[in-house]
Parts: sequence; C-alpha cells; structure tokens
Amino acid sequence: MKLWGGRFGKEVDKTAEEFGASIPFDRNLYRQDIAGSIAHARMLAKQGIISPEDSNTIIAGLEKIRARIERGEFEFRLDREDIHMNIEAVLAEEIGSAAGRLHTGRSRNDQVALDVRLYTCSAIVTIVERIANLQETLLKLAQKWHGIIMPGYTHLQRAQPVLLSHHLLAYFEMLQRDAGRFYDCYTRTDVSPLGSGALAGVPYPLDREYVAEQLGMNAITRNSLDAVSDRDFVVETLSAAALCAVHLSRFAEEIVLWSSGEFGFIELDDAYSTGSSIMPQKKNPDMAELVRGKSGRMVGNLVSVLTMLKGLPLAYNKDMQEDKEPLFDSVETLVNSLTVFNGMIATMQVRAATLYRAAQGSFATATDIADYLVKKGIPFRQAHEVSGKLVKKCVEEGRTFADLKLEEYRAFASEFDEDILLITVESSLGSRKTTGGTAPEQVANALTAAENLLMETRDWLKEKSTGQDER
Amino acid sequence: MKLWGGRFGKEVDKTAEEFGASIPFDRNLYRQDIAGSIAHARMLAKQGIISPEDSNTIIAGLEKIRARIERGEFEFRLDREDIHMNIEAVLAEEIGSAAGRLHTGRSRNDQVALDVRLYTCSAIVTIVERIANLQETLLKLAQKWHGIIMPGYTHLQRAQPVLLSHHLLAYFEMLQRDAGRFYDCYTRTDVSPLGSGALAGVPYPLDREYVAEQLGMNAITRNSLDAVSDRDFVVETLSAAALCAVHLSRFAEEIVLWSSGEFGFIELDDAYSTGSSIMPQKKNPDMAELVRGKSGRMVGNLVSVLTMLKGLPLAYNKDMQEDKEPLFDSVETLVNSLTVFNGMIATMQVRAATLYRAAQGSFATATDIADYLVKKGIPFRQAHEVSGKLVKKCVEEGRTFADLKLEEYRAFASEFDEDILLITVESSLGSRKTTGGTAPEQVANALTAAENLLMETRDWLKEKSTGQDER
Amino acid sequence: MKLWGGRFGKEVDKTAEEFGASIPFDRNLYRQDIAGSIAHARMLAKQGIISPEDSNTIIAGLEKIRARIERGEFEFRLDREDIHMNIEAVLAEEIGSAAGRLHTGRSRNDQVALDVRLYTCSAIVTIVERIANLQETLLKLAQKWHGIIMPGYTHLQRAQPVLLSHHLLAYFEMLQRDAGRFYDCYTRTDVSPLGSGALAGVPYPLDREYVAEQLGMNAITRNSLDAVSDRDFVVETLSAAALCAVHLSRFAEEIVLWSSGEFGFIELDDAYSTGSSIMPQKKNPDMAELVRGKSGRMVGNLVSVLTMLKGLPLAYNKDMQEDKEPLFDSVETLVNSLTVFNGMIATMQVRAATLYRAAQGSFATATDIADYLVKKGIPFRQAHEVSGKLVKKCVEEGRTFADLKLEEYRAFASEFDEDILLITVESSLGSRKTTGGTAPEQVANALTAAENLLMETRDWLKEKSTGQDER
Amino acid sequence: MKLWGGRFGKEVDKTAEEFGASIPFDRNLYRQDIAGSIAHARMLAKQGIISPEDSNTIIAGLEKIRARIERGEFEFRLDREDIHMNIEAVLAEEIGSAAGRLHTGRSRNDQVALDVRLYTCSAIVTIVERIANLQETLLKLAQKWHGIIMPGYTHLQRAQPVLLSHHLLAYFEMLQRDAGRFYDCYTRTDVSPLGSGALAGVPYPLDREYVAEQLGMNAITRNSLDAVSDRDFVVETLSAAALCAVHLSRFAEEIVLWSSGEFGFIELDDAYSTGSSIMPQKKNPDMAELVRGKSGRMVGNLVSVLTMLKGLPLAYNKDMQEDKEPLFDSVETLVNSLTVFNGMIATMQVRAATLYRAAQGSFATATDIADYLVKKGIPFRQAHEVSGKLVKKCVEEGRTFADLKLEEYRAFASEFDEDILLITVESSLGSRKTTGGTAPEQVANALTAAENLLMETRDWLKEKSTGQDER
Repeated sequence: MKLWGGRFGKEVDKTAEEFGASIPFDRNLYRQDIAGSIAHARMLAKQGIISPEDSNTIIAGLEKIRARIERGEFEFRLDREDIHMNIEAVLAEEIGSAAGRLHTGRSRNDQVALDVRLYTCSAIVTIVERIANLQETLLKLAQKWHGIIMPGYTHLQRAQPVLLSHHLLAYFEMLQRDAGRFYDCYTRTDVSPLGSGALAGVPYPLDREYVAEQLGMNAITRNSLDAVSDRDFVVETLSAAALCAVHLSRFAEEIVLWSSGEFGFIELDDAYSTGSSIMPQKKNPDMAELVRGKSGRMVGNLVSVLTMLKGLPLAYNKDMQEDKEPLFDSVETLVNSLTVFNGMIATMQVRAATLYRAAQGSFATATDIADYLVKKGIPFRQAHEVSGKLVKKCVEEGRTFADLKLEEYRAFASEFDEDILLITVESSLGSRKTTGGTAPEQVANALTAAENLLMETRDWLKEKSTGQDER
Repeated sequence: MKLWGGRFGKEVDKTAEEFGASIPFDRNLYRQDIAGSIAHARMLAKQGIISPEDSNTIIAGLEKIRARIERGEFEFRLDREDIHMNIEAVLAEEIGSAAGRLHTGRSRNDQVALDVRLYTCSAIVTIVERIANLQETLLKLAQKWHGIIMPGYTHLQRAQPVLLSHHLLAYFEMLQRDAGRFYDCYTRTDVSPLGSGALAGVPYPLDREYVAEQLGMNAITRNSLDAVSDRDFVVETLSAAALCAVHLSRFAEEIVLWSSGEFGFIELDDAYSTGSSIMPQKKNPDMAELVRGKSGRMVGNLVSVLTMLKGLPLAYNKDMQEDKEPLFDSVETLVNSLTVFNGMIATMQVRAATLYRAAQGSFATATDIADYLVKKGIPFRQAHEVSGKLVKKCVEEGRTFADLKLEEYRAFASEFDEDILLITVESSLGSRKTTGGTAPEQVANALTAAENLLMETRDWLKEKSTGQDER
Repeated sequence: MKLWGGRFGKEVDKTAEEFGASIPFDRNLYRQDIAGSIAHARMLAKQGIISPEDSNTIIAGLEKIRARIERGEFEFRLDREDIHMNIEAVLAEEIGSAAGRLHTGRSRNDQVALDVRLYTCSAIVTIVERIANLQETLLKLAQKWHGIIMPGYTHLQRAQPVLLSHHLLAYFEMLQRDAGRFYDCYTRTDVSPLGSGALAGVPYPLDREYVAEQLGMNAITRNSLDAVSDRDFVVETLSAAALCAVHLSRFAEEIVLWSSGEFGFIELDDAYSTGSSIMPQKKNPDMAELVRGKSGRMVGNLVSVLTMLKGLPLAYNKDMQEDKEPLFDSVETLVNSLTVFNGMIATMQVRAATLYRAAQGSFATATDIADYLVKKGIPFRQAHEVSGKLVKKCVEEGRTFADLKLEEYRAFASEFDEDILLITVESSLGSRKTTGGTAPEQVANALTAAENLLMETRDWLKEKSTGQDER
Repeated sequence: MKLWGGRFGKEVDKTAEEFGASIPFDRNLYRQDIAGSIAHARMLAKQGIISPEDSNTIIAGLEKIRARIERGEFEFRLDREDIHMNIEAVLAEEIGSAAGRLHTGRSRNDQVALDVRLYTCSAIVTIVERIANLQETLLKLAQKWHGIIMPGYTHLQRAQPVLLSHHLLAYFEMLQRDAGRFYDCYTRTDVSPLGSGALAGVPYPLDREYVAEQLGMNAITRNSLDAVSDRDFVVETLSAAALCAVHLSRFAEEIVLWSSGEFGFIELDDAYSTGSSIMPQKKNPDMAELVRGKSGRMVGNLVSVLTMLKGLPLAYNKDMQEDKEPLFDSVETLVNSLTVFNGMIATMQVRAATLYRAAQGSFATATDIADYLVKKGIPFRQAHEVSGKLVKKCVEEGRTFADLKLEEYRAFASEFDEDILLITVESSLGSRKTTGGTAPEQVANALTAAENLLMETRDWLKEKSTGQDER
C-alpha cells in the first residue's frame, strides 16, 4: 500500500523501494511521530475540522499503536516506506476510515520536520545531562585531588607546574561551552513546523500555536517553504556534537599518554581496560582510544549533512532524508562517549608522586627565575635571556637548578640573591594568582564557580524535562 | 633576532623558519595585537608593575607603529616569526629598553588568543551587517514583487502555487537563523584570555577585568590552561559560516536554474553576468555559481580546524597556529559572497508572466481538488486518490484540469459540484491562510514581522559597533 | 569469557564492553575471518607447528561454524567483543583444546587487517561490476538514442548543440576512471598481512607466502609494524567511492533537472518514481535525489577515517576499529546507488522533440557564426565580437538567428555570404569532428571504444572472481 | 577589456569582478598556459589553420611574455579576470591582430583543463621527489641505527621489543604506497583535453595528438563534455596528498612524544626547534607539530573540492574555478611538510640507552614466555593465561620478570625449565624471523629491499622529468 498511488500505473521497483525506504532508521521516531499526530488530531477536533469522535478514535488508536511498538509487537514494513506511513496504515487497519482524516491539513514534509525537531530537543536534553554528569565527576575529582602538583605542558613539553585540579577544570570549561552551544541550538530547534503543509501552508483553519503548546514547544515557524526544508537544527546539533567530541578526543589523548609506561601518571581501572589476545602483559586504554577515534565519525557526520544540503533548491527534496542517520549516529555516539568517559575517569587512580617528580623535572621553574629578575628591575626580555642561559649551562653539565650555587647564578646576573634558592614548584604555582591562574586559592575559587555553573545546568535540565512526557 | 634565544646554540634552519612563520597571514591581526598591547601596558602601569613613563612610552610607540603599518611603511620580517614579535622587535628599535617590559605578565599564548578573539568579534559584526543588508534587499524585493505568483517546488517538481514574496522570505528566515548563530558565537568569543600567561596564570598582580573593559570585552576567561588552548570560537564561527554558505548555495542554485533557458524566470543584470571566450551568445550566472561553489571551501575550512584540533593534549600546541588561515578565508569568503549576492539579486529582473504560466502548469492545484473533496466529507486519503486519478486521466489524454468538464469530474466522485471549476492558482494560494502560509495576507504579516526582525539586528549591530574603535 | 584475562582482576564494565564491542558490525567479516583461519591452520600444519590432526579438526570446526552462521543459527555475543573471539570461543566449545592452537603465531592485529583486506577486495569486485553494468546501460542507451540532438550546457546555459549519445558517454568516461581507481586500489589491498603478529612478527617458522597463495592474494606485506596499522586501503577505497558518488550526484542532478516541468526532457518510469502523501499530481524523481544526497555521506565517511587516523602513533591503536562502519556503509551505499541508478535510467523515456527544440533555442549556433567568419579570414576574437552583437540585436528585437536576413548579417560584417543561412544545429554539431567531439562519426567511434573498454573491465572482473570462492 | 563583450550592454560590477577574478591565484599557471598556447599555435600552423608567420609571431610573443613574467615585469590585471586573458591581452598589445588567431579552435574551458593538468603532473613529480628524499633519509638512519632496540607499541603501551630500524622502515612503507598512488594519479592526469573546445569539440581540423606529443603528454581525452568538466585528477591528487599528510601526522606525533621529557628518546636539533617567548627552558618540536596540524588543512582541501563538485550538471560550471586554491595549497603544504620533516629527522639525535631501558620495562617479553610454553606443547590460549598471571604477580609485588626464580615460574606451569631465565629483549626480537618481522636479519633484508624500491622511484622521476622543460 502506498499513500500516493492515484496517478501511478505501476508498482515501485523492489530495489528502488528498499533504497528509498527510511523505515529502517526513522522507526526511531515513533514516539515523536505519535505525539505529533495526537496533538494534530486534538487540534483538528478543536477547530471543528474533524469530529470529536473521529479525533478520539484516532488518538486511542495511536496510543494503542505506541504501546504495541513498545512491546515489540509492531511489524515495521519496508513497503510502507517510512514511520509515518507505517503508523498510518496500521491505524487504518485498526480504526477504519477515521484514520484517513488524520492527514487532513498535514503533509509528510511538515510531519517529519516536527518529528526530527522533537527528537533533537530530547537528544539535546540527554546530551546536556551526560555533559553535566561528566562535569560533576571532574569537579569531584578536582576537589579530591586538589593538592596534587603536576607539570603543565605546552607543545607536550613540561612548561610550568600546575595543580591537577586546575588541569581537570580546563575540561570543565570546555564542556561548559559545549552545554552553552546545545542550549542555543535547543532554542532554535524547539519550534513547531506543523501547519506548513507540503510547502505552502494549508487551506484549513488550523491552530498552529495550540499544537505547539500541547507539545510543549516554544514557538512556531514563520515561513512554510522554509519550515519544510530547514535542517539547520540538525547541522547545528552535529556541529556542537563534533566540537564536544573533539574536546573529548583531547582529554582521551591525555588519558592515553598518562597511562603509558613513559608517563605513568595514572592507572585505569581494570573495568575500563582491555587486554591483548597475544601479549599477556598488555593493559590497554581502549575506551580512551575509542572516544578519541570516534571524534572522526562526528566530524564525518557533520560533513555528510552539510554536503548533502549544498545546492538544494527550495523546498523539500528527497536528499533531506539523509539527515537522520548522521544525526542519530552522532547523538548516540556522543551520549555513549560521555558516559563511558565518565566511568573511566571516575574510577582511575592517580600516581601523585610520579606527577610531582615530573613537575620538578625539565626546568619547569625557569620562568620563575626570569620573573624573579623582573622584580629586581630587569626588563622581562633580558631576564628571559639570563634564565635561558642558566638552562643551557645545566643541560650541558647534566645538572638541575637545584644543583646550582648562588655564585653560579650571579655569574649570569648580579641581581640574584639568596632567595633565588627558594624557588620551588610550590612557590612557582603559588605565585600565579591572577584570576583563572593555578594558585591554590584561585583554583579553590574556580571550584566554587564550577559548582554554581553545574547547578544552573541542572536547573535547565529540570525545566526542559518537565511536562514533556508526551513528546 | 628571536625572543627566545638564551638556551639555543644554533640558528633555526631557513626552510623550517619559513614553514613555521605565521607573519604572512597573522599580520592581519596587527590592529588587534596593538590594541591588546596598549590595554596591557596601561594596566601594567595602573597596577604599578611598570612605571607610568614606561607605559606611556610603550603606548606612544605602539601607536606610531600602527600608523606606520597603515601607511604601508612597516616591514614585516619572516625571521621575526609572527605579528607579536614583529611589532615587539620594532618597538624595541623605536623606544629601547622599555619595550622589554611590555611582555611582563604576558605570553604569546594568551596574546594570540586575545588577538584572534578580537578579530573574530569584529568579523562577526561585519558578517551580520552583510546578512542584514541581504535581508533588507530580500524584504524590499518581496514588497515590490508581492503579487507575483510562481510555482512552489518540492523535488524540483511543481507542487503548489506560491507568492514570489513568500519564496523570498524563506531565505530571509534562513539568514535570520544565521544571524542568531553569530550572535551566540559572539557572546562566547567576546571574552578576554589576557592574564592567562603561557598556560598557568602569571605571578604579577594583573587586573584582568580592567584590560577587558578597556577593550570593551564582555568577560574574562576562567581557566588559564583552557584559555590558551581554546579555539572553540574559531570552530563555532566556521560552523556558522559554513551553514550560512550552504544557505547561499541553495539560493544560488535557484538563481542558476531561474536564469536557464528552460526556466526563464529571471534575467540577471549584465553587471552580474559574464560571457564566454568562445560562445558569443552566452550570458552566464557566474556570480551565483561561484557563491554556490565557495560553500565547498567553507565546509573544508571547518573540517581543517576540527581535524587539526582532534587529539591535541593541553595546553597550547603549535598545531593551533593552523586556525588562522581557515578563519580568515571563511570570513572573507562569506563577506564577499553576501555582498555580491546582494548586488546580484538587487539588480535582477523577474519575468512575472513566465512565473505565472509555470504556476498554472503541471496540475499544481491537484491538492486543492483533494481538499475540495475533504470539505465535502470525504476522508483525505480517499480524496487524494480521486485527484490522483484525475491527473492520470489528463496526462494520458494530454489535457489539463481546465479542459475537464463537470461530468468528467463526477465520473470519479459524485461530490464534485460546479464550484470545482472555480479552482485557480489564485484561489489555491489564497486558501493557505495558516500562519506562515502563502496566502497574501499571511505573507503581508510576514513582511511586517521581517521588518521588525531587521530592526532588531540593526540595533544589535549598533550596540556592538559602539565604542570599539580601539580594537 | 575474555581471551586476555590472565593479568586482570576485574570484569569489564558493561557499558564499556558495549561501547568497545565491534561484533555488531564486524560480524560482516565472518567469511573472511574463517577463510583466513583455515589458511592459517593449514599452514601451521604444513610447517609442523601444529599437528595435521589438530589442523584438520580446526578446519572442520570452522567450516561447521561458517555453515551455522549462514543458516542464521550462530549467536553473536557482545561479551565476546569481536568476530574473531566469537568464532574462536565457539570453536573451543565445539572441538575443545585444539582450538587453543589456532591463534599460534597470529594476533588479532594481523587477523583483522587480513579480514578487512579480503572484504575490501571483494567489495571492489562488486563495485566494479556495478560500474560496468551502469556503463553497459549507458552504452546501450547511447546506441539507441544516437541520433537525438540536445543542447549542450555550460553554466546551465545552452551552449552548443550536442548528441544525447555524446552526453551519455561523458558519464561513461567518469565511470571508467572510477573503475581505474578501484583497480589500483585493489592491487594495493590484495596483500596479506598475516604473519605480522601483534606488531613485530612472530617467533614461529610461518610460511606467509603459502597463506597468501591459499587465499589467492597477490603479495605479502613487508613490515610488520606497518602491516598491523595500515588502513590506507580503506581510505583509498573511501576516496574512490566518494568520487564515484560525486559523479553519480552530477548525473542525478541532471535527471532531476530533466524530469522537471521546465526541462521536460525525460519521463522516469513509475517504478522509479514516488508520489506525495498530500499532492496527488506529484511524481518525484526520488531515486535520483537520494543518489545525489548520499554523496554527502560518502564524503563524510572518508573524512571520518582520515580524521580518525590523524596523529596516531605506531602501531595498532583501538581507534582503528572505527574504520569498519564507514567502509561498510560506503561500499553498501555505492553498490546500491549504482544499482538503482542503472534501473532508473534503463527504464526512462526521452522526449526527443523537446530536446531538439531546446537545442534550437538560445542562439546555440552563435559560435558557429564566429567560426564561419574565421574561415573567411577574420581573427577569432573579432568574429566573436560580431556574433555577440548579432545576439544582442536579436535579444533586443525578440528575434532568433532564423529570422535574420543576409543584409542584416552583412551590416555587422561584409564577409557574410548566403551560406550563413545554412547554419543549423545539425551543421553545428556535424562540424565538431575533432577526436572526442560531438560529430556523429566521432561519437560512433567513441561508442566502439566504449565497447572495448567495457570488455576489458569484464575480463578484469572474471580474473578477480576466479578461484576465490574460499575468501 | 573583456574577451566576451559583444552581447553585453554594461560593465561588470567592480565587486563582482573581483569576486570572480581568478588571476590572484591562477597566475601560478603562467608556464603551463604559455606552453599550451605555444603547442596549440604550432599545431594550428601545421594544420594550415593559421599561417606559419602568424604562428611564429604568436610563439615569439608568448616567449617574450614568459620571460617578462619571470623577470617580475608583467602586470597581472584583475579586470582581465584570469591568466588566459591576461596573457592574451598583452599578446595582442605586443603583436597585434595575429594574437586574435591564437584562440581559434580553443576555449578557456579546455585551456584551463590543460593548464591544471600540466601543473598537477609537475606537482606530482615534485611531491614524489620529496617523498623519495624522505625515504632516503629514513633508509640512511635505519642503516646507521640498525642495532638500536626500542619498545614497540600498540595502544601506546609497550608491547614487544623492536629494532629502531624496523620502526623507521614502517614509515618507508607508508611513503612507498603514497608514491604509488601518485604514480597512478599521474597516469590519469597526463592526458591532453585540448581540442575539446568549450564543450562539444571544435569545427577545425585540429591534430590533438600532435599537441599532446609536443607537451610530452601521454594521451588525449576521449569525450569533450567530460574533458572540460573533469576534475577527477584534482580530487585524486588531493586524496593522495591528504593520506600522505596523515602518514606524516602519525610520524610527527611520535616525534613530539619522543621529544617529551617523559619519553626522552630523541633530541631534535636546535635548527629544527623553537623556544618560548616566556618560558626560557622550553625547546619545542614546532616543526613536528605544524606538520601534524597541517594534515587538517589537507583533509579540508579535499572536502572543499568534493563538496564543490557535488551535484554539478554537465559540462563546465564556474564553481569549478574553486579547484585551484585547494590544489595549490595542498601541493605546497605537502612539499614543504616533506622537506621540513626530512631536515628535522636527518639532524635529530637518538638516545639509544633510554630506548633500550624502555624496551626492558613493562614486561615486554610476556609474549615470549607464552610462546616458550607453546613450544613445550601447551595450547597458546592456556600459555597466554599463565604468562598473564605471572605479570599480575609481578605487578602486585612490584617486581619484574628478571626478579623471578625458576620455582616461581614453576608454580604457574611445570613446563618451565632453566632456559626460561634466558629470555631477553634481544632473544625476543631475534626470534621474530617471519618475513617483515623485526629480527635483525629480516630487517637487513628489508633495508636492501628498500634500497631497490628507492632506485625504482628515482628511475620513474628521471623518466617523468626528461624532455619536459617546455611544460
């Protein structure tokens, strides 16, 4: 059964039918589709377009179908193309001719746009929740490990000592921006296109706002041609997801580095590690590697949809069916990546002594020596030069700053005093007291700020999750 | 001269120096770099870190350098790597040792992050301005051509008649969302990283908020490690630009189609067309094609930066230098695309009669026939079937709806009455009165709404452009 | 059961296990995995590393498992991670301890590399076969429609008349290059990595060439570290697939254009068209649109894998597991796209008269007028100018070349003679006799050449398909 | 001056002109353009289409122009759009009306296709040369450091000991495949499209093979519509370049890791390192980071062109102008990356003792213990379990294999004998004697094989560079 057979003289070719069918993936949208249909049917009755009886019959039929789907007793049929037609066809079997009135004043074009918007809103809520969970773990770990000192890196070279808590909070910030992008995207997504018809609006006295209200949506679209061919919210979700995945890939890279024999900074829990089929000693940070690797597919999904949309004339084109698989895949991948990452870091052990030793190595206080001279009145550039020469001397002689005597310092600049010998990794990081710096009191402030940000996210989540059981 | 020579025993290899130098492109940032340095110098003096005299000397020197650059009298040197060192080195030549104090409490890592943020803010303002200009043209054309009827398309098949003004406003909506994304991105970009130092904060009593205020920036970053390695705002700008470019590519595709001999809907102005070196009759819609084609590079630039960032550990890595060229290229390309597109559509002629004829062809009122039957009580699905059969009959007999007699209609459904003969493209589009539909009064409302939205954008632009001459 | 439990003290977290499991997609590789294992077992016995009895038991067991999988009676278990372990575990249940000897001198790293290579080879054969089928259809249509004249386009403007057969052969050429790229990729893929072990080679006297021979593979890899971490053949397949998909997207765009009411060049068969749920008259070129849209995901899949591989150190990293889904998806999508496209064009009708009328419109013989003057001794540039002015005159006066009298021509250049009136679309295209030009005899040559190329492809396919039932 | 003004009534808008002009980048093609024009002019005379005098005048004029360009005395003008028109216009100024005959039987469409093909061929030769240089360096280093033992890694965990030379040769292999892809691409690129005209062939008796011969090209294109709209060779070059860049990014990642304080495996030469403007001790592996980062733009460039081509109808469309910048950028970036990388590794120092110590750590011989038991008759899976338990015991007790006594081994498996104590990293790697394995004699074979492969590349380069001075 096709819903558009009138003018056609022939069945669709089987291969073509399979190629065109979206039911293998858009069945994911059954909840959204049914919620939209119920809201539509209710509105049609309210506006006197269909009878209250028909409306009730339709709604009851749809609810029965939803239950059947959730019990796994619904047969999705390829020859019924998509989720909309699968549901409508079964509805007709169930309730007879009233089913034929449900599509009044509606097209698959605005219907699918609604379904994908509802799905995306709900996906964003789930994503933000997982982001918040990961942030919470970061916050707890940062509190727990607040005193631990590690080398800060640039160019993967030890640069200056920092607090481990400070390092962890850097990822908190990235995730905070990710959440922000998802909020903004949510606002642009939570808009009902229903009532746009196939492309030009519909000739029935629909109450579009009423439908939106029932679905708990924020607004309605303003232009019907745009409404049925707008996939911006998909692209925007994929963009935000790709960037979030890139953030995770950076953190994952560090987990892999830190787990290596060379760094030895952490020990992952056995529950988040895997072994080798051939090398008995191996304990691999597979989860971190997978999270890192999966950033590739998130970028790929974004490219898929941008490339697909490129050059399409108005309004709806079948190409747009290709929006769903990348969207579903990125949402699922991101949710899983955030979840697994959370479990992985929540259970890992930190080797504080190793971190501390590393922070002491590699002349990580050389900047402090330069800053010391600046405070004695030497311009920074010149102070930098002196400190660099001290490093060179040490490297050539196989020594460290700790081995240098005051006279040796003085040979490079007469401004050096006894107190130069007091520079330590602790004094170094303690001195970086600018807002956002790694000094313990600054990081303590940052921990409090992070708590507050997290509470705001939880509030947003509560608000968005309330009263939306229907959709 | 390198600013970091102390510990090195050898000059950099010439090829390596060229490969690593960013001055060929980051010279674009000279205004931002100098504005940031001036704000920094002023703050250093205010905080008593350098003397007021040094601060004044530095600021005067920087202003002189800015003037020199703008007169084209500044020699950018490859061996001075980047814009920061080029300016600092010349400053040292100009004002002597005071120059060495400017870099106190600052690193190239936070400096470049500031510069790129300031650049991006200013780029966003320019982009939004060009978006608004294009929207204004769309609005004016939609007002001017409000009564013109054309076929609305889905799948590039004529679907239902629509107003040309309605069609144009669909692009207004896309651009409106583009502007929205740029606003959101602006808010996340307009944040000062200065004072984050190389990665860990700095050991001087800087007043970070004061620097931000002077630069008219909205906030300061919260974590130094994040601040020097955050390029989210670049990715977000590139994402918004890529999607905006995809919107333009869709419109461009339509311009190309409409200019073709087959469509013949519009005539581009000679000033926005080009000819062929070999075919004397050709008048090509080159500008539209280029805008369409350039969407490819905008997607490519986005991929470049996402791929570059993937898997980078904290904090700054040299890879990040690769953020600038894609950013500059996408900004410039988008600004130019918007500008040229604006000129092209502002000057094009529309062939109203051709549009009207096309709207009448291809049975574009078949949905109205189905809707007619629905109003007579037939379920939509059945009505659709009847209308489809009428189409099939006409196609087979080489006729149009206008050729059908009442009896012929009645042969398919007895509900047809005389008034079926009154269905026209005008009645069809006049009936689509749902909000956002193509009925003339709805489109008139939409025109008013668009005017208001445009005014809001102009207000945003005014606000963002005020008092930011310095940066 | 994990195959690497010895050093671990804890079970893997359930979510992590699911996240890491590849069995949902690598089960596709069961044939390749079993073929590789059989070849390996046979070789182990031949080399005296395991007993002939064990080898036979293993092989019989594997064959039984293959049959079970093909009957759908094999339970793929998520807790057994991947296809290799699923098969090995069941083998152990079936044949007992001999199963434990199969993994001698082999690692999952070289095993999966082999499986994916075998899969890719077989995928390439299928793809090339579908390419050849589509080429054959193009060839047949070009022969059937050889005399039909249509406008050739540049910039979607009518440019010069061409034969429809010539136009179709342009796609034959693109597909020919696609096939060429797949051949080259095949050669680089058809190389056995088995014997590379986990990364360093193995300490058993394996006969690697013997394994390759049994599998009908061309060569063996030269470096074990490279062999287990090389996914070049995946990237290369994805690149070739993306470009082939882009070719199809170009052809698909033309099918969409040609099916439009404005062009009206073709009529797709009902079996390859779909209707609208709301607009009864619609007949949409969905298949062409889908093929066009799916090019996006092919580009996306390529980006996924390139981005995933970026920056991975030697040798195998878990990220590489992410190669399979994009590969499988692109292969399947391309095969289906080629198949459906083939059916679609094989069944479409061409409206020769419409094509001819279009070829006569838009001054498509203006170049011929310029060329006419060149033959009379006028430099081309000047002749071009004259012809352009004639076009301008006609456009302004609403006339065509056919309306012009000789005197009118002569007003622009005295070199015009009576024979200028003989220029027609037929004379125009008949004159383009350079090799590869659209003159009928040249296109006839091209048809013959195409036949020969196709025969070569069929030979290649025969060669590659022979004696490879095992793999 | 435009070359197509006849039918136009107005000048092009200035912004549009700038937007459309390709001269800022296609001026790169001046050599190719002139070479093509000379070959074309010579052929026109040979075929009697223009006089020998005109041909000679044209050729002399073109050679003068080439010399002027190379002396930097040629003014490229934006209002002359592109390289073809810039040269042709100046030619007309120089030699008068004969210049107007050069464009006989040629269009910018086939002309630019030729230019880009010639450029790409020459770019491929340069790239392959740099690949060969890097391979040569790898080979020399592998010979020099043949005895050095290092840990082989999977998942960045120490896996099994390998020879440094073996590790370096893995990159030799990747580069070898890269070269292979470039060869194949060269063959498909080295084909002359000249004579295809604007799209349909030309009405002059051109000798297309003669032009190709003069240019030293391999073949001529077979279909004119395809020839002017084919950019496959650009995509293929960009694909091969992106993959080569990804290979370099992997090696670069290792250089960055190896230079870190934690690994400490190598010391980069000061000439290939840079310092920090603020941290005096820093010595950063900037070149490696840049090479790694630049892989992003290579992927981006590939995406640009694929996306641009998507959905373009035949034949030439202006969008295709967007092929050049990505092509030029990827070629230049790859050539520079290869060159700098070569210099960087040629001058780096290796810390053999550190590598050796690392190879001994982390139980890298655990597989050898399992293999030991296999030789005693235990199935591999069981042997793996035993070895894993030994590792677990050592980890828990803070010991290494070297600390274990025979009895302790025997507690896990009675098959252990005295000789278990003889397993060392040397014995481990010495045992991996399969072809392609890391045993010293295998690697020695591989070094010889690499020498031969390199000689073949040098031969290819010689062949392709001979007699092609003209182009």
